[in-house]
Amino acid sequence: MMRSPTPDTPLIGILGAGQLGRMLALAGYPLGMRFRFLDPTPASPASHLAEQLVGSYSDHDMLERFADGLDLVTYEFENVPVDAVRLLAERTLVYPPPGALLVSQDRFSEKSFFVSQGIPVPAFAEVGSREGLDAAVEKIGLPAVLKTRRFGYDGKGQAVLRSTDDVGAAWRAMGGQPLILEGFVPFERELSILSVRAVNGQVAFYPLVENHHREGILRLSLAPVQGITAELQQQAESYARRVLDALDYVGVLAIELFEVKGQLLVNEMAPRVHNSGHWTIEGAETSQFENHLRAISGLPIGSTAPVGYSATLNLIGALPDPARVLEVEGAHLHLYGKEPRPARKLGHITLRTNDPAVLGERLARLRDVVSKT
Amino acid sequence: MMRSPTPDTPLIGILGAGQLGRMLALAGYPLGMRFRFLDPTPASPASHLAEQLVGSYSDHDMLERFADGLDLVTYEFENVPVDAVRLLAERTLVYPPPGALLVSQDRFSEKSFFVSQGIPVPAFAEVGSREGLDAAVEKIGLPAVLKTRRFGYDGKGQAVLRSTDDVGAAWRAMGGQPLILEGFVPFERELSILSVRAVNGQVAFYPLVENHHREGILRLSLAPVQGITAELQQQAESYARRVLDALDYVGVLAIELFEVKGQLLVNEMAPRVHNSGHWTIEGAETSQFENHLRAISGLPIGSTAPVGYSATLNLIGALPDPARVLEVEGAHLHLYGKEPRPARKLGHITLRTNDPAVLGERLARLRDVVSKT
Repeated sequence: MMRSPTPDTPLIGILGAGQLGRMLALAGYPLGMRFRFLDPTPASPASHLAEQLVGSYSDHDMLERFADGLDLVTYEFENVPVDAVRLLAERTLVYPPPGALLVSQDRFSEKSFFVSQGIPVPAFAEVGSREGLDAAVEKIGLPAVLKTRRFGYDGKGQAVLRSTDDVGAAWRAMGGQPLILEGFVPFERELSILSVRAVNGQVAFYPLVENHHREGILRLSLAPVQGITAELQQQAESYARRVLDALDYVGVLAIELFEVKGQLLVNEMAPRVHNSGHWTIEGAETSQFENHLRAISGLPIGSTAPVGYSATLNLIGALPDPARVLEVEGAHLHLYGKEPRPARKLGHITLRTNDPAVLGERLARLRDVVSKT
Repeated sequence: MMRSPTPDTPLIGILGAGQLGRMLALAGYPLGMRFRFLDPTPASPASHLAEQLVGSYSDHDMLERFADGLDLVTYEFENVPVDAVRLLAERTLVYPPPGALLVSQDRFSEKSFFVSQGIPVPAFAEVGSREGLDAAVEKIGLPAVLKTRRFGYDGKGQAVLRSTDDVGAAWRAMGGQPLILEGFVPFERELSILSVRAVNGQVAFYPLVENHHREGILRLSLAPVQGITAELQQQAESYARRVLDALDYVGVLAIELFEVKGQLLVNEMAPRVHNSGHWTIEGAETSQFENHLRAISGLPIGSTAPVGYSATLNLIGALPDPARVLEVEGAHLHLYGKEPRPARKLGHITLRTNDPAVLGERLARLRDVVSKT
């Protein structure tokens, strides 16, 4: 495509006006960018600081209104309908490319794509019927995880099968939609790697992040991870690079990995900025949000070098007293402007220190403050 | 006053919607704050990301509309009419306190106030008539600087008197308004200190900043300054503390100083966030913008410790190619969304490095990019 974004004051359209969109806008204003959001939920987090159109991603008239005058479109979540993105791509530039969306919207396509690139993944099998589930269990063994192929996030649409006794109940709960069975991985750690690729093919990687989930929701990320070998970082970068290049990707890409016996298995990818990269706002020379915007608008990618040591704690369901949080030295509070609701991501706190030795002690104080809310 | 800001989603009113207001809003959204601006110029820099009421600061009806529902009012420039601030102070909390405005709006009151606090200042004299000017020249000696007592900024409203031949012309150009004559200070360096005081009296100081002006406009700030003794930092902090405490100040206060033979003379103060503190966005643990908002809304002040070494280059009159700026490692671009116009501050670039040795070389590259625009 020969069009390129307007150099001054580009108007960027973002599908989805949640916290990721909000943090993209906060990173983009200093670069002179302006933003328009489309999201079906009124008064979404990004609406406090930019124009939000309220409407469905399937409403073609709304998409036309949204596209009017935009220099560029991006998205904050991977479950936006591919048809909407294709329609927008006929009107303006869309990054990351629709092909990346297609691959990542379906767990089976995604894992098959990883395999096609020579990237190791846990054992997996497509499940289309009760008989198919039995065959998959036979092939993969137990424990295993049954997942919907589409629309899963934060642990939703998943069931762990520990013994053959669990198979019937899981099928009754989830059967009738496309499913995938994945071998349960006895991982030592869950990691992720944030990478970014520019229009001209320039690529950069952030250091590996260690992630801790509870009830399927990311609670804590640590970056850069302590005790990671250069080999493991290189392995992660090599997998990310294959994905970026194969998809002719533009923007930030997140890949979640399992560390098992000194090797990495790729779990899944997100063609967007990612919760496990929030630490980069304070903890890296250039944040994932700024680098995503720089990449998609044809600007050079900024340094991904870490600035000290960071821990990001997600605020789920309820908010702590901001004053108590901010009493902890090096704590940076990020609220998303959302009403509290169980299991909802309402904000995060990034704790940044120059000295890794004090990170643990301050994090313990912070967790104490957060747990008492 | 017993009212305190609403703990969740405080709505903060800001008088002035320029770049300082814009950067305050960018720092405040992550803290869950919302903003409303009042500024007579439509489509001001902050209007891109918050509500802006367009109207005069002297329009009482407009001030009532502005105040409606606000938890707190602050301002981004010190020339807002004191009457407006007093009216607002009857409706809601106003920080910094109106008394600080009063003192800083008049160069003679300001210098007299510094003297009353035992803070050394250059020689100065009030000038109300041509005879008064002659007497002041006699008293202070030449060279000296004749300034308007009110509404001066970025070198506007000033004339340097090098010999008695200059006196007549300066009087013809500036006479008829309240003036002040200040002794010309043969300074080694111009410095500034950013300080912040919370509602509860907690005080913090950023490290001294070295400033370089041209044609009366700040061009370059370096922080922390190299080769500053602990005594000089303490001297600056002690002067700032006297001002903060005497005015029962709340918020960020900037004080400009001259370094002369290892001693400091105070030049002027600004009761607000300040151009010489922009480096704190990337170069300090907590930015001046965030700390101003934390202070005025009753939150604990964040660490003012520097993170590495920073240089901030102002973009005056014309903008460089963003791509060339962002090619320089560690360069962070901040555009204000203003139309280019001679002598206008359009943005700034902060260069941050961990290693002070590379700062000079990168800064030279950056100046080269900026000078070619």
